[in-house]
Amino acid sequence: MNKKAVLHIPMSQYAFALDEERMVFRLRTARGDMDACRLYYGDRSCRQTPVIFDSVLMKVAAQDELFDYYETEFVSPYRRLCYYFELTAGEERFLYYGDFFSDHCVDDRSEYYQFPYMHRDDLVRPPQWMQDAVVYNIFPDSFASGKGFISNEESRKEFHGKTVRGKRGGTLRGITENIGYLKELGFNTLYMNPIFAAGEYHKYDLIDYFHVDPCFGRDEDFRELVDTCHGNGMRVIIDGVFNHCGWQWDKFGDVVDKGKDSQYSDWFYRLEYPVCRPEDPEVYPDYECFGYERMMPKLATDREAVADYFCRVCRYWLEEFHIDGWRLDVASEVNDDFWRRFYRTAKSVNPDAALIGEVWESAGHWLDGKIFDSSMNYDFRKHCRRFFASRSIDAAAFDGRVTHMRIRYRRQSVFAQMNLLDSHDVSRFLSLCGKDRGAYELAVLFLMTFPGMPSIFYGDELGVEGVLEVEYRQAMPWGREDTLLSFYREAIRLRNGEKALRRGSFRTVSAEKGSRLYVYERRLPEESVLVAMNMEENDAALMPEWLEGRILWQRGLRSEQLGSRGFAVIKKEW
Amino acid sequence: MNKKAVLHIPMSQYAFALDEERMVFRLRTARGDMDACRLYYGDRSCRQTPVIFDSVLMKVAAQDELFDYYETEFVSPYRRLCYYFELTAGEERFLYYGDFFSDHCVDDRSEYYQFPYMHRDDLVRPPQWMQDAVVYNIFPDSFASGKGFISNEESRKEFHGKTVRGKRGGTLRGITENIGYLKELGFNTLYMNPIFAAGEYHKYDLIDYFHVDPCFGRDEDFRELVDTCHGNGMRVIIDGVFNHCGWQWDKFGDVVDKGKDSQYSDWFYRLEYPVCRPEDPEVYPDYECFGYERMMPKLATDREAVADYFCRVCRYWLEEFHIDGWRLDVASEVNDDFWRRFYRTAKSVNPDAALIGEVWESAGHWLDGKIFDSSMNYDFRKHCRRFFASRSIDAAAFDGRVTHMRIRYRRQSVFAQMNLLDSHDVSRFLSLCGKDRGAYELAVLFLMTFPGMPSIFYGDELGVEGVLEVEYRQAMPWGREDTLLSFYREAIRLRNGEKALRRGSFRTVSAEKGSRLYVYERRLPEESVLVAMNMEENDAALMPEWLEGRILWQRGLRSEQLGSRGFAVIKKEW
Repeated sequence: MNKKAVLHIPMSQYAFALDEERMVFRLRTARGDMDACRLYYGDRSCRQTPVIFDSVLMKVAAQDELFDYYETEFVSPYRRLCYYFELTAGEERFLYYGDFFSDHCVDDRSEYYQFPYMHRDDLVRPPQWMQDAVVYNIFPDSFASGKGFISNEESRKEFHGKTVRGKRGGTLRGITENIGYLKELGFNTLYMNPIFAAGEYHKYDLIDYFHVDPCFGRDEDFRELVDTCHGNGMRVIIDGVFNHCGWQWDKFGDVVDKGKDSQYSDWFYRLEYPVCRPEDPEVYPDYECFGYERMMPKLATDREAVADYFCRVCRYWLEEFHIDGWRLDVASEVNDDFWRRFYRTAKSVNPDAALIGEVWESAGHWLDGKIFDSSMNYDFRKHCRRFFASRSIDAAAFDGRVTHMRIRYRRQSVFAQMNLLDSHDVSRFLSLCGKDRGAYELAVLFLMTFPGMPSIFYGDELGVEGVLEVEYRQAMPWGREDTLLSFYREAIRLRNGEKALRRGSFRTVSAEKGSRLYVYERRLPEESVLVAMNMEENDAALMPEWLEGRILWQRGLRSEQLGSRGFAVIKKEW
Repeated sequence: MNKKAVLHIPMSQYAFALDEERMVFRLRTARGDMDACRLYYGDRSCRQTPVIFDSVLMKVAAQDELFDYYETEFVSPYRRLCYYFELTAGEERFLYYGDFFSDHCVDDRSEYYQFPYMHRDDLVRPPQWMQDAVVYNIFPDSFASGKGFISNEESRKEFHGKTVRGKRGGTLRGITENIGYLKELGFNTLYMNPIFAAGEYHKYDLIDYFHVDPCFGRDEDFRELVDTCHGNGMRVIIDGVFNHCGWQWDKFGDVVDKGKDSQYSDWFYRLEYPVCRPEDPEVYPDYECFGYERMMPKLATDREAVADYFCRVCRYWLEEFHIDGWRLDVASEVNDDFWRRFYRTAKSVNPDAALIGEVWESAGHWLDGKIFDSSMNYDFRKHCRRFFASRSIDAAAFDGRVTHMRIRYRRQSVFAQMNLLDSHDVSRFLSLCGKDRGAYELAVLFLMTFPGMPSIFYGDELGVEGVLEVEYRQAMPWGREDTLLSFYREAIRLRNGEKALRRGSFRTVSAEKGSRLYVYERRLPEESVLVAMNMEENDAALMPEWLEGRILWQRGLRSEQLGSRGFAVIKKEW
């Protein structure tokens, strides 16, 4: 037995409640090492000593190159559990508890692993609607100034004596006028990059948190946009920038002008006096920034008054404009306690509001149920890039990375992830594919058939490309004819039409070493949808049993052969 | 290379800041597997791509049977880091980042591990004094009714129409009158089990959170006790019971009487109507309890009004009586958000207040810097039990468990742990040792020379024994002559006198398989204290270099031989 590979972490994605009854336990072992893995669980308040244990055989729910991930889900008869694992490999048998291997049970129940209490307040419960969401991500400056149209003209407006700029002419009314377009494509959620008053066209350098940027329109335009979305069954998520502000923000100006006497002197992180405007590089550094960007001073979100202020911002847009959620910028650099407070504020207004952190790395730390519901899943893009774009890994390695994505968080958090191939911060995935549209489409199909919210960056559906920022944030090419549009429409229709693709469990069916044929299944109790995709340069043979069922969608399927860049989506019911 | 054994968890005890400058990184590998392990760290806001990395060679800071724990500590030039590990074993060399092994670096810095921001508000910083504390834990009913005296008489008092009981006559004034005794022994911290009004002698079934139990005295007696302690340089920690109340609590009575119309109807967890008093077992279960103890209804600490109320309790005793901390009962069964709020409340009154959770299991979840500063380290007792009492493990296995204790949390949390051999909830360790005083004394010596606060349960110093509750909570045997008393005095004097024993790093010196000789060292930059203890039944040979230095304390040391149950404590300075 490879004891060194065994991993269990209590109070984590390895032991969690789905609700006040259902629990999931996981254990990691070396791949193929165990003959059996059994969970024993008992009432940690059991009136008898030794505790009476029930047991359940665990199953391998996921695998990667190195490990098997055993899992079991059951309705627990207890709200307080102590538990241990029994591992069997050939002649060897060990019990595993308290992070140690043993060959016997003990009377002292506290030596076992503990799930101390299935507290209703500690449950991790992202809004249910997130697992059904299909997100369209709009960079407001670049999308539209009218129905099917963008001016692509620079603008400059005055806002309380400050200058704000637009680059390509996008407006909120422009978005509103194109809601029909998005609805027809099947999107049910709109996520917009920042819309509040800010200096630059990207609007991440905020100067007012309570008003829409004049380049984009008036506050009432935003109200109309939200109402139009809601009238069309679409939810609206906006972008909250609370790590830093723009240097033109009044409160920062006050500190520059008045120094220590400013009432906002403790609103900025590691401020030193005298504070200079960013034009003056002489006295440096006198405050902390986003990166080293002096146009964006870092906010002291650990100060009570600052947290108060931004929680008012949180509440205002939820209460007054009925937004459905916040995407939170540079989330991992802000103190946890601020986000916890932000979360409580948002949920007190609307328990169904979605909170999505911009965390590029593994975000488990922030997905404890009280910080964010979800995070932007850039790892999704990274892994897809290797398999579909650079083609540097085979199906087995890709599947290992897919396993990592679905096992690294509690299951409910995986289903609320914001999966993406593109965003306003990265090169267009189509460009990374070197114009290999077949490969790109397979990546889109994977996006649409994986647990979590697919997020599509505006224009992806029209084949927008771009490696540099100026390219990938280009104006929406309205009117362009592109075959991708119908591919996206079909892929979204597929997801929206099949509950198994949104809520079903994920199971790898085929991911062989050296192969680029990837086959997986999404499964509900009474139906499943199997997806096969061929990233080989040649035909790949499919197993006949994979094809049993109804073909929902396919390309390149000829009897049991799947052509290069081909795919097949097959539904079974029983 | 045994890749399956490699473990790193960002944002955890594997990657943490000690303050706004110093950082610690750790990596686990299979024992003896690596030739070298090197950390590469860069500025995650680096203006250049690829990021420029610095590197530092990591050292094996701890080992157990299966693993090496590599560690490095350094002053970071950046507050935002991305990092990866370089692992070398023979001909093999791998980079490890993002939970994957690779043979090359990447341009995309987000693929590396991230320490996103060393935020001042996210630092884990237990009060400094905790690492120097030596705690005397008093069970108030059993300790003293006067100087060197306890009546050992039952009492019954009326308290606002309810009956409260005492069993052995202990009072707060009794404690006050014996502060000199504790001071003379070298204790500098007093931790008392509950003192507020409650029905039973143990006072865990509270009926008033704002008043001292009349069996123990008046509120002013408590004030005098705290003032006396402070006047003698001792801190005072009291026991907070917020998971549940006693059934006689007015607010619970109100719910029983008025049902749903009670203003406290949502103060209790999973209450169902009609609510019956615990005497009536017919209607059952109608509310959640501590365990299945209907005398102790579980509190709905997730309700705003309930959290408000108990945070007022928190504040009251800190502000009005100047207590120095709370030990928090049944902490792992209470919702995290309540504790987070409790923590903020306590620290807002006194940033140096200590918050210690009753968590018997691995408490990492609660030691994130915003829930508790520390936890009761029952694992300390468990491991000591196996080595010193049942003698079921050898020095190697014991050292593995010691390694687990010191590597499972951030370093600063280990130094704030409340280590214990005894408490009001377990059999006396001396009894577990089967009257083997030599073994018991070695366990006490280990307690006094390990990082973290040693906590001694009243009477341990007089050789109190007991396996059952009625025995181990027996009245303090004032006047008993016991050789343990001088042993304790010496051991505490040793700890108080040697900074290395309180604040020095821990290093295993000898812990051989099959041996019961255990040797370790506590080290500061310019001095170290080595401790050797022999749990063999025969003499054990010491290495001459261990004995270089000044002998601070020893028993059974004859030239380079250490007798059974002997020990040697040796100081080096350079």
